[in-house]
Amino acid sequence: MEIKHINHPPTILNRYIAELRDIHIQKDPLRFRRNLERIGEIFAYEISKTFTFKEQEVKTPLGVATEFLHEEEIVLASILRAGIPMHNGLLNYFDRAENAFISAYRKYTEDGEFDIHIEYISAPDLNNKVLILTDPMLATGSSIELSYKALQKNGKPAHIHIVSIIASQAGVDYVRNMLAGEPVTLWLGVVDEELNAKSYIIPGLGDAGDLAYGSKL
Amino acid sequence: MEIKHINHPPTILNRYIAELRDIHIQKDPLRFRRNLERIGEIFAYEISKTFTFKEQEVKTPLGVATEFLHEEEIVLASILRAGIPMHNGLLNYFDRAENAFISAYRKYTEDGEFDIHIEYISAPDLNNKVLILTDPMLATGSSIELSYKALQKNGKPAHIHIVSIIASQAGVDYVRNMLAGEPVTLWLGVVDEELNAKSYIIPGLGDAGDLAYGSKL
Amino acid sequence: MEIKHINHPPTILNRYIAELRDIHIQKDPLRFRRNLERIGEIFAYEISKTFTFKEQEVKTPLGVATEFLHEEEIVLASILRAGIPMHNGLLNYFDRAENAFISAYRKYTEDGEFDIHIEYISAPDLNNKVLILTDPMLATGSSIELSYKALQKNGKPAHIHIVSIIASQAGVDYVRNMLAGEPVTLWLGVVDEELNAKSYIIPGLGDAGDLAYGSKL
Amino acid sequence: MEIKHINHPPTILNRYIAELRDIHIQKDPLRFRRNLERIGEIFAYEISKTFTFKEQEVKTPLGVATEFLHEEEIVLASILRAGIPMHNGLLNYFDRAENAFISAYRKYTEDGEFDIHIEYISAPDLNNKVLILTDPMLATGSSIELSYKALQKNGKPAHIHIVSIIASQAGVDYVRNMLAGEPVTLWLGVVDEELNAKSYIIPGLGDAGDLAYGSKL
Repeated sequence: MEIKHINHPPTILNRYIAELRDIHIQKDPLRFRRNLERIGEIFAYEISKTFTFKEQEVKTPLGVATEFLHEEEIVLASILRAGIPMHNGLLNYFDRAENAFISAYRKYTEDGEFDIHIEYISAPDLNNKVLILTDPMLATGSSIELSYKALQKNGKPAHIHIVSIIASQAGVDYVRNMLAGEPVTLWLGVVDEELNAKSYIIPGLGDAGDLAYGSKL
Repeated sequence: MEIKHINHPPTILNRYIAELRDIHIQKDPLRFRRNLERIGEIFAYEISKTFTFKEQEVKTPLGVATEFLHEEEIVLASILRAGIPMHNGLLNYFDRAENAFISAYRKYTEDGEFDIHIEYISAPDLNNKVLILTDPMLATGSSIELSYKALQKNGKPAHIHIVSIIASQAGVDYVRNMLAGEPVTLWLGVVDEELNAKSYIIPGLGDAGDLAYGSKL
Repeated sequence: MEIKHINHPPTILNRYIAELRDIHIQKDPLRFRRNLERIGEIFAYEISKTFTFKEQEVKTPLGVATEFLHEEEIVLASILRAGIPMHNGLLNYFDRAENAFISAYRKYTEDGEFDIHIEYISAPDLNNKVLILTDPMLATGSSIELSYKALQKNGKPAHIHIVSIIASQAGVDYVRNMLAGEPVTLWLGVVDEELNAKSYIIPGLGDAGDLAYGSKL
Repeated sequence: MEIKHINHPPTILNRYIAELRDIHIQKDPLRFRRNLERIGEIFAYEISKTFTFKEQEVKTPLGVATEFLHEEEIVLASILRAGIPMHNGLLNYFDRAENAFISAYRKYTEDGEFDIHIEYISAPDLNNKVLILTDPMLATGSSIELSYKALQKNGKPAHIHIVSIIASQAGVDYVRNMLAGEPVTLWLGVVDEELNAKSYIIPGLGDAGDLAYGSKL
């Protein structure tokens, strides 16, 4: 498993992350969602640098041009509900991709073990495709783990890109350990040091789902 | 329950519905989603005509203006996954709304009865709010019914707007019967006559979820 | 010439106008431009209610549908530079329209008379088309007058829609007088009473061009 | 003067360029403009990698984060009318930038010499700012030259980025020669070999302005 830090070198992306974090600016949900969307677009662009490109001819009104176009079939998967604005951004750039939406949680048995319970999944056949799985926050790594495992029932992708804007160091370590040896790239915006007792990333930004879509019961 | 037909008089909305239906144009998923989004925006605008407005003062750089602004607290709810592009459109216009996402199905018992099983729900307190529930296709009315009932656990809205682009006559009748006497407005783009044995609206447009997001296993 | 007030009954549009005016909210240029764009979309939708619609058949994957589609050929014209965000909004809805951009001013001669000097114009043939001319602020009416006259060199439209968000009463009177008897509809958001000595609308919103794009030398 | 080719390594950007060129796909003006806009966004992102970043503290709901944010003041300038969709894309990403719009042509005198005639210009003070000047096609280099010189009246930028999607080799040579020794970076999508007698790039894509906005008289 490879880890890529998208904020080295720094870019305008940092501004969007700063705005997501900023306790005053994040009060505007339109701008909050727009920042998630723009970051999704930038991840899409950077991920596309890893694709394989093949020469194709394109007929223009004035001649024939040669362009190098990627051949991968892409599936964009996001974890409900906080992943939707980033999903929209990724889809802005990969506008012909297939899409998956997923929600999963741990269902504990009496002896303290747990099964992965898939609450909701809508996903295509994943065999030999490039899967891009997105969750804006990588806190404990549990959501990514559950979604990753749930999606495996739909086939074996050629490669998996996991995308998070803000991660905790503990979450990165957990995912790295879990996916060691797998054909996975973990794309990160920034890594914050601390994960508090309630599994919130510190300094983080708070609850991305609530900030994008309002609180829920 | 009141029914409002948004395509009388005809408007540019008809063009978007025609493009959603068109077997050639619907092959472009970017345009397909964009049409769902634009239609969501137009429904938002038309629904806002039913709101209650109150005079408020606004300080401009050159003086003080008086504007009539609505006071309703709005919750946008959409049925997964086909409702997301319309949800995005409604949220483009009601950018400070709270949001709900829902997936529900009928779970049959041995004796042929069924419970409403909520697969996924993320919703705020709904008491005294204006709930706008959206599903692009109203075929049998079953999805709307299940979502409507599932959302009731979160409180009693002051008013509920149900929004569908293409409905079958059977679906309209079903919903009207189910919601008789309730504080509900059903907003419709067009009503098609037929519902086939597989519960597809004819001529309809096919499967809105697949056309927006690709097929699923 | 007909005048249509788009904020009767009040709608969510009022919120966008209030935000454009608000001395605090208008400091966010992204939201300022977005409000101009959304208002452009709503004007497009309301204008489309005046079009002539003709039955057309559309082939769906499951049958043949009949839709009423407009037949007008539309040209969107905006006055530089403040008209561009509204132009973008109108174009979001009339996505197959032709487009015109214009800048014009009065060039005075020694005897105090003036010619209309077209600084910049890019416009198609306008004969028999529906021309939608947009400027967010209608202050004195001079910009609209100059642009209107400059565009006449490109042919005689079947109908002209002039669109402004905030107008002064003096500007409305001026345009009404100038265009009496012409096939023109003037679409207005709100009308403010006062026009100050510097030709600013009071309370208005300040300078729409500067707020959208920054000050200029 | 430095030249940067943004399509090495290849990315999803190539797909957008291929769609702009494609004689069938370019018939959809919504997609054509959207591709120009997306390419503008990607140029914005890549250009931001050249900025200078400085540590700043951001207060989150849960703590204090440190982000590296750029300090440059940005001015986006585009050549009318074909530059507007790319301008919109650059502005999507640099949403707090100042903006300039310009149109200029050569006005010949009787002795065959010419002056630069500025048809339209709206631009802020440029001193010490980062100017990003955009024109989708770099054919002869004449439009860029005229706009560049016209903008000089507004001050001396700290750095100038010139952005074109498709350039001719002759145009690149012309601009390189003209701007030798200047603090300028020329950003290019692709370079086509030929420039025909009518100054069209071959294979190019045709007329970007007409494809985005319709033909003009």
